[in-house]
Amino acid sequence: MKHIPEHLQALVGQAVKRIDTPALVIDLDAMDRNIERMARFAQQHGVLWRAHAKLHKSAHIAHLLEHAGAVGHCVQKLSEAEALAAGGITNIFISNEVIAPTKLARVAALAQSLNAQGGRLAIAVDSEEGITRLAKAMQDAKAGPAAIDVLVEINVGQNRCGVEPGVAALALANAIQSHPSLRFAGLQAYHGGAQHLRTAAERKAAIEQVLKLVNRTRHEFDRAGIEIPLITGAGTGTMVNEAASGIYGEIQPGSFLFMDADYAANQRDAAQPMFEHALFVKTQVMSRNDRHAVCDAGHKAHAIDSGLPKLHALPPENALRFANGGDEHGVLHPDAEAGNTSGWLPALGDTLWLIPGHCDPTVNLHDFMIGVRGGRLKGVVERIFSVDGRGALT
Amino acid sequence: MKHIPEHLQALVGQAVKRIDTPALVIDLDAMDRNIERMARFAQQHGVLWRAHAKLHKSAHIAHLLEHAGAVGHCVQKLSEAEALAAGGITNIFISNEVIAPTKLARVAALAQSLNAQGGRLAIAVDSEEGITRLAKAMQDAKAGPAAIDVLVEINVGQNRCGVEPGVAALALANAIQSHPSLRFAGLQAYHGGAQHLRTAAERKAAIEQVLKLVNRTRHEFDRAGIEIPLITGAGTGTMVNEAASGIYGEIQPGSFLFMDADYAANQRDAAQPMFEHALFVKTQVMSRNDRHAVCDAGHKAHAIDSGLPKLHALPPENALRFANGGDEHGVLHPDAEAGNTSGWLPALGDTLWLIPGHCDPTVNLHDFMIGVRGGRLKGVVERIFSVDGRGALT
Repeated sequence: MKHIPEHLQALVGQAVKRIDTPALVIDLDAMDRNIERMARFAQQHGVLWRAHAKLHKSAHIAHLLEHAGAVGHCVQKLSEAEALAAGGITNIFISNEVIAPTKLARVAALAQSLNAQGGRLAIAVDSEEGITRLAKAMQDAKAGPAAIDVLVEINVGQNRCGVEPGVAALALANAIQSHPSLRFAGLQAYHGGAQHLRTAAERKAAIEQVLKLVNRTRHEFDRAGIEIPLITGAGTGTMVNEAASGIYGEIQPGSFLFMDADYAANQRDAAQPMFEHALFVKTQVMSRNDRHAVCDAGHKAHAIDSGLPKLHALPPENALRFANGGDEHGVLHPDAEAGNTSGWLPALGDTLWLIPGHCDPTVNLHDFMIGVRGGRLKGVVERIFSVDGRGALT
Repeated sequence: MKHIPEHLQALVGQAVKRIDTPALVIDLDAMDRNIERMARFAQQHGVLWRAHAKLHKSAHIAHLLEHAGAVGHCVQKLSEAEALAAGGITNIFISNEVIAPTKLARVAALAQSLNAQGGRLAIAVDSEEGITRLAKAMQDAKAGPAAIDVLVEINVGQNRCGVEPGVAALALANAIQSHPSLRFAGLQAYHGGAQHLRTAAERKAAIEQVLKLVNRTRHEFDRAGIEIPLITGAGTGTMVNEAASGIYGEIQPGSFLFMDADYAANQRDAAQPMFEHALFVKTQVMSRNDRHAVCDAGHKAHAIDSGLPKLHALPPENALRFANGGDEHGVLHPDAEAGNTSGWLPALGDTLWLIPGHCDPTVNLHDFMIGVRGGRLKGVVERIFSVDGRGALT
């Protein structure tokens, strides 16, 4: 499927130490533990979990998550759904709006294809126009009855997409039900911003507000006698709250898989599993003087929208601070506050592991993720994961 | 070479209006004018210009620049050089340090290959260790005499890579000359940070400081009786200063080709050509309410390290402000300050053109750039450019 570059950073079976830089590396031991913790959490709380593939964009990882119990996968873009489907994934929810008729024709084709495989495509809507266009595309594709699951996205505080909770959401559900090819499948009620509130109390308060808006909507549906098959939403940062609500039937965490520096800055909820960092950018010092070292990973190698990367696994006496060195460089300074009072710096050629500030857009910068097992020092490359949905924007 | 996705945003010959979103679009009329202005500027100032390909990462565009008079191309990464070479480009300067022996073996192979084609590879160094390792790789590759051009990078104020100006630079030139396979080709004296100082006076002052450091270094070389074949550096923001210095033989502008919102925020130097925006992200409104519209381009479609994108070509009464909507969304608010006092918002399905905050890492997010001619409204897709060096990190 994907063009394999002449010079991949690693080959399966090689020692971790030999991975060329910069490279996106998954610690498979840590990732497996994160998956196990997630599966246990969902089981304990009696909720389904639909992992968000906008993070990993890999059909292979999607299969691993299904094996661990994930009921399916979310994506934000149609082309991400197509990339997962090409890798054999059949239960996909596009948790976002699609408006362009050319794209909706592809949505209809994908829905038919997944249905034929015994799978299912779902999509979010937040406007009458979106529903009308989707229904037309399904009709043009000669889709049978209830050929695609359609969820009404309500605005629960993110103030981005989503119809107003309450009667406006009900009107959209009615509109969905007026088209035979569409099945009203529930409510998408996701508050992305709440994931990144720093204290557990703030996140809890934000989700209490979400629950009020969801309940207001449920009340309108009850009055109209329309059943809501599913309420879905929640990410890694707040899922303890949605899972405990008794209202959400499904949660959509993605970041639990890898965790990033931004999530690590959150005060952990007591009920939250102890997810570990599992995704790193391996980098090498390619220039150095007495004051700083320069490594070969800049923001073409890791996304900085949620802050700069942190250095992984350095003892306090070797603590370093990563400063923005532009597109292709990172500048490493001794971090005296953290314990590096000697001004220690890594040598030319030394390698370091960075914890990205934000994993989702970091993964999107890379074609491959190098899965290693056995640790940074003695581990071995076990598998190369293709980022199937890299650059899947449409 | 590159895997062509099933659903490209456009095909050659289609109307610009039909380009699917989000898409990276080049206004070829504007780009051609920018190239012409650059060629004229270099001719008028009697300097060579070596366009920086870390911006466009496209072998096809590199050829266009050569046709207009560019003497060759800069890259920041070996794998970018390899991508250009695979597209038939033979004069390449890796304006950055390379330290890993596996990479240096590739450097040596590339140098030999370009030499055989009558071209040339150059590379920057800033340490004795880097020179020793490069020489060993060249020797291992059985390279002949002076098989690669080696430039000493001096730190002229960027405080990132680069040896100290003066005697330390001279020591490295001597080290280069001690290895028969290496040719000392000059000084790399580039101050990236100076490009983005807002006023022309600040930029001029920063480059005056650069020139002092370069002159101090020239003085040491003069005393030692070693000729400096070339002094190279300068980017779009400051090149009027380096070009006027009489010291720089070559300038390395990249951004002039596309220009971005960050560069547009610079006060223009009187001597600077009037470069235009030529690179855009076309995006579509996929959700909307009374307060804002949401478009389908987030920071997986454009880099935000130098600020958010600006809206292109909207009249004041329709002015919009782009707010960060995360990885996959942009939130558009009426910009009353700029003249949109009615609260006008685009309709669901409307398309808009964004000027990226920073073009280099924006291009790196896309596999293809869609070259259009004839304007946004009536134009036609003329050519699809492959971003050959996308994700070329090593």
